[in-house]
Amino acid sequence: MEDLIARRSALLGPNVSTFYDDPVHIVRGDGVWVWDAQGRKYLDCYNNVPHVGHCNPRVVDAICAQARVLNTHTRYLHELLLDYVERLTGTFDAALDTAILTCTGSEANDIALRMAEAVTGKRGIIATDATYHGNTTLVSHLSRSNIPEVGYGMGDFVRHIEAPDSYRIDDPDGHRFAENVQRAIEAHEKSGIGFSALIICPLFLNEGFPAQNPGWLKPTAERVKQASGILICDEVQSGFGRCGSHFWAHQKQGVVPDIVCLGKPMGNGHPVAGVVTQSEIMDQFRTAFRYFNTFGGNPVSCAAAMAVLDELESKDLQANAAKIGKMAADHLNELASRHQVIGDVRQSGMVFGAEFVLDQTSKSPASKFANRVVNAMRQEGILLSKLGRHKNTLKIRPPMPFDEANLDQLMTTLDKVLSETPVLV
Amino acid sequence: MEDLIARRSALLGPNVSTFYDDPVHIVRGDGVWVWDAQGRKYLDCYNNVPHVGHCNPRVVDAICAQARVLNTHTRYLHELLLDYVERLTGTFDAALDTAILTCTGSEANDIALRMAEAVTGKRGIIATDATYHGNTTLVSHLSRSNIPEVGYGMGDFVRHIEAPDSYRIDDPDGHRFAENVQRAIEAHEKSGIGFSALIICPLFLNEGFPAQNPGWLKPTAERVKQASGILICDEVQSGFGRCGSHFWAHQKQGVVPDIVCLGKPMGNGHPVAGVVTQSEIMDQFRTAFRYFNTFGGNPVSCAAAMAVLDELESKDLQANAAKIGKMAADHLNELASRHQVIGDVRQSGMVFGAEFVLDQTSKSPASKFANRVVNAMRQEGILLSKLGRHKNTLKIRPPMPFDEANLDQLMTTLDKVLSETPVLV
Repeated sequence: MEDLIARRSALLGPNVSTFYDDPVHIVRGDGVWVWDAQGRKYLDCYNNVPHVGHCNPRVVDAICAQARVLNTHTRYLHELLLDYVERLTGTFDAALDTAILTCTGSEANDIALRMAEAVTGKRGIIATDATYHGNTTLVSHLSRSNIPEVGYGMGDFVRHIEAPDSYRIDDPDGHRFAENVQRAIEAHEKSGIGFSALIICPLFLNEGFPAQNPGWLKPTAERVKQASGILICDEVQSGFGRCGSHFWAHQKQGVVPDIVCLGKPMGNGHPVAGVVTQSEIMDQFRTAFRYFNTFGGNPVSCAAAMAVLDELESKDLQANAAKIGKMAADHLNELASRHQVIGDVRQSGMVFGAEFVLDQTSKSPASKFANRVVNAMRQEGILLSKLGRHKNTLKIRPPMPFDEANLDQLMTTLDKVLSETPVLV
Repeated sequence: MEDLIARRSALLGPNVSTFYDDPVHIVRGDGVWVWDAQGRKYLDCYNNVPHVGHCNPRVVDAICAQARVLNTHTRYLHELLLDYVERLTGTFDAALDTAILTCTGSEANDIALRMAEAVTGKRGIIATDATYHGNTTLVSHLSRSNIPEVGYGMGDFVRHIEAPDSYRIDDPDGHRFAENVQRAIEAHEKSGIGFSALIICPLFLNEGFPAQNPGWLKPTAERVKQASGILICDEVQSGFGRCGSHFWAHQKQGVVPDIVCLGKPMGNGHPVAGVVTQSEIMDQFRTAFRYFNTFGGNPVSCAAAMAVLDELESKDLQANAAKIGKMAADHLNELASRHQVIGDVRQSGMVFGAEFVLDQTSKSPASKFANRVVNAMRQEGILLSKLGRHKNTLKIRPPMPFDEANLDQLMTTLDKVLSETPVLV
């Protein structure tokens, strides 16, 4: 283990993050399970990329079958790309009828911001102050954790607004958030940069997935539209049925975005991502920018992505997300009744978690405690993580086939760990 | 066919390029061959992405074997990533000993430019006026064909210099090019932006791969170093043995770059790419920027990339590139003695071509003729393309297992097409 860590640092450089104080050396995966090099089995409650399960046979078979027949780029005609885009756009509102396929969600968001510039002729972007949308030079500026002085000065185009936080900020219907967006729009216009786009994850997953009433984004979408701006929903994490009630989380929030970006779960780990938008926006982008992506939309990627849709449909995994998510919230609420450190329980389909606080009244974040819990769970054979502005909320986001038995194991172990982990050290 | 084209335009938007006036609908690939939907077989003299051959069994088997066992991200420990980076960096000069793996060459170049900014604290980039380095917002500005008014104003950071052209510009040892670089460095410094990096393909492949004496880049590298700038070699096209004489084209050019970017052939079509650099530069990048790539360096990508190295080695494909390339140049020179339209023959390992001119004295480019030849070759069952500033040079860049019989078929067909295609219409 020390040897592997030393080799990583020598070969990959410093600050290459690993999970856990005691990193896991994973060698095998199957469904919701992974195994380490010593043969120990872990329940995966974290990974959303293997959306239909680690090494899902349908997806692996599709990749292998296509890789043996043809893998080339989109300058030749190929039906699979068209069949996939047709099926993918069929899951969206009618207006969202065209797509570009890329390899990563970062590439998708990078395109979306250029689409917004092409349409509006302006460059001012709005994002929340606790978000992450990817790693290209432009897109990395949407994360406040990046150092604004580096990165070709692109930070000038971004205004960050208060991330929603249903536990601390009273905004059940999204009006406060909409007003913050409005102020940022006005500031962009006043500065001369002009307002181009609001980019958000519809579930605000990195922000700690606050509880929100249905239609929470409607007031915001109206402000963006009034200002002739573009609403970009980054569904890299929230999409493909994870929210349980809908296939896309923006549908739950009651809005039709101008642009939707997709990624992580799309190919179950195969590098495929994309941008879905209206024909008019696609036309303006494709007129303003020459865009070609060598690997984007290749037949193997499309085969992987198509198999993910098949698997979601045939196993009815969106319904499973709704069912298990509801049960998870009940479990967490029961734990909250016995563990004072749980200040709030949040859940949206197959993404759920508990926010830890030192005190229920002051709501002071128990961030170090959350870190201890995450590490203790790893020692108990359960993989999960933490997120949110204070990094004090459990991030539980398992593969979609996660079932009742898996949930019981998770909750029993969490109960034990919460009982055994000191809140203050 | 018309149906497929109509579906493409509806689902993907306008300006999604296809090759040939009569696009090819490819359904199968094997080695240097592809087949269309009607069962017609084509000799692939164009595609460098399937570097070790379409559907190479060793690579496909490696992908399938790993995809069945585990595909996850680099926040867990995994030996394959380390084994691959160790082997990859082992093919470089000792100073180039660390790497980041990404999914696309665009992502790699985007990182390289940020590395340069992190090291120099400056943002001025130099590229040639006939190049292409990828499609992110930042990187797309390196292509002059992009409209400078859009793209978040990043065009301000780029100065374009005259691309080398051994047929028209007398610069056998690279001194003229180095002086142009020097002037651009001074202009960047004078403007206040400051000089950060020169980014070039060591073979200048998009520019038309001019003939260059060994060590051609040395004077340029010295100027960059004197100015405390960063030399980035984009080896996305030129690397992995294609140039025949060396594994990396910069080695042929007699320089050790600060940063090397890799892509297309690295995984034989599986989306994997990367950046190789010195530890000191990696440290500065990783300190200045947080960087994580969800799919980058995943075990399946590493398995594919490792199998490509195995295949190159076991079949000695670099030597094949040197041998076939030399024979191709001889063939093309012979054709040039009989076809006045060939103004110049160029070759560097397994990339070769002929530049077409209307007149040997004026060297007026025969661009439309080149286009007719490319389309006529496609009708004869040979896939190739054209490139260079005037798009009048044949781009012949087959998979590395391309053999003597393949070369004979290519040259016999080219001879026929050159005889039958009118130079003026």
